[in-house]
Amino acid sequence: MEPVLSNPQSERVKKVRALHRRSSRLRAGLFLAEGPQAVRELLCFRPETAQAVYVLDGASGAVLTELCELARDRAVPLFAVTEQVMAAMCDAQHPQGIAGVARPVDVLLHDALDGEGFVVVLTNVRDPGNAGTVLRGADAAGARCVLVSDSSVDLYNPKVVRSTVGSLWHLPVSIGRTIPEIFEACRSAGLTLLAADGVGNTLLPDTELSQPHAWVFGNEAWGLEPEVRDACDEVVRVPIYGHAESLNLAMAATVCMYASAAAAHPKLG
Amino acid sequence: MEPVLSNPQSERVKKVRALHRRSSRLRAGLFLAEGPQAVRELLCFRPETAQAVYVLDGASGAVLTELCELARDRAVPLFAVTEQVMAAMCDAQHPQGIAGVARPVDVLLHDALDGEGFVVVLTNVRDPGNAGTVLRGADAAGARCVLVSDSSVDLYNPKVVRSTVGSLWHLPVSIGRTIPEIFEACRSAGLTLLAADGVGNTLLPDTELSQPHAWVFGNEAWGLEPEVRDACDEVVRVPIYGHAESLNLAMAATVCMYASAAAAHPKLG
Repeated sequence: MEPVLSNPQSERVKKVRALHRRSSRLRAGLFLAEGPQAVRELLCFRPETAQAVYVLDGASGAVLTELCELARDRAVPLFAVTEQVMAAMCDAQHPQGIAGVARPVDVLLHDALDGEGFVVVLTNVRDPGNAGTVLRGADAAGARCVLVSDSSVDLYNPKVVRSTVGSLWHLPVSIGRTIPEIFEACRSAGLTLLAADGVGNTLLPDTELSQPHAWVFGNEAWGLEPEVRDACDEVVRVPIYGHAESLNLAMAATVCMYASAAAAHPKLG
Repeated sequence: MEPVLSNPQSERVKKVRALHRRSSRLRAGLFLAEGPQAVRELLCFRPETAQAVYVLDGASGAVLTELCELARDRAVPLFAVTEQVMAAMCDAQHPQGIAGVARPVDVLLHDALDGEGFVVVLTNVRDPGNAGTVLRGADAAGARCVLVSDSSVDLYNPKVVRSTVGSLWHLPVSIGRTIPEIFEACRSAGLTLLAADGVGNTLLPDTELSQPHAWVFGNEAWGLEPEVRDACDEVVRVPIYGHAESLNLAMAATVCMYASAAAAHPKLG
């Protein structure tokens, strides 16, 4: 390992910290992955995209030790840093002792769509935590890919990366295309477009999910712009059985995605 | 309406602010409900428990105007306050112009259990946002009641109240009892205890949900203490179809609760 990095004002630290800003990420072609879970999934699933790993000097826990071994094993440059340097690099208040810098993993729209299973489209999702949580849910429910519209939060925002808890490296993602481009690509791939929205006419349990389909999710208030809704084949709502006015985006999306998973994995017997 | 309250240092404002602390809530027998959605549901569902409503002086939006009319109509004391007073009273960074003070609505364990539908038990849930989100999901999915163990976050914490978005007033809740007391009451009510945990042996799609049951949810990492798991009849896990290690508590709970809702509302035809 290199000497311990101890100067929070050094060029290297400033360059890592700059990755909190979208413009710097675009210029550098890099982004920041904070915390053990993100670093592990980066090193396990896409080590060739890892540029460096920074670990707290003297950290002795089993998790960090394992991750350092993993980085060495994958030939990823590993640097020990002081607490001050870690704090200066990271966006998280408690960076949990490890962070990685990596190259983007997004793929072309058509490459993302090449595969099996339901597709997830995020349109105008602005809250980083919500975007990351839906990506994590898409991964858990076995989605083919996640397509993030250009009007949504940047997928490489440190808060989004953190809240995906590693799922960013688990399934194909595509970013930066307009909603019409995404919809056209989905239709060319033979997908039915299902808008998820609290005003939908079709109830989720009555929705045909055995055919190839894409879920289209909107912004935080779990609402889609009328023109986006109108461009979809069906507008589906999760039934509300009690007095709640709605579910939040992440919960509604999770229920929809697990309904697709259930249709794709029918019970035996 | 009374004269505008303009002194952030007044006794009244201090008493409201004190409700951010659990000890003060217990002493006063009151809690704080911030934001239009919470105040609306308080006034619509349990106006007799509302002690006062505070609204930003000069606020003219349709939502706040409607809520002021609602408060007058329900004979709930209504006070106009300055921005400084509102900020001093509230826990939220952006209190959205309205807040209410109300008496607790929790009921006895056995009264909460008197009804139909699945039951939700929260054990050792510490994060306010998670507790509130699960309560909101329980409401949406049509749960009979929510039973919160004494080892969980205080339900009347302003952050919990906010994140329930009004569901706190929609279904019976019981608080402050130990996990063994809650489990015994559930068994006496004829409920099967289903622990939701990533280590479960039974997959959610294979779980019998047509019989009366209670979901037992654990803390943030979506894990239950072994002794809590062992005290349940089955340990159920939400299947993970992709590479995600887990779902977060709110997402896993939502999938479980909507599976119960689907069993309770079978598709026609």
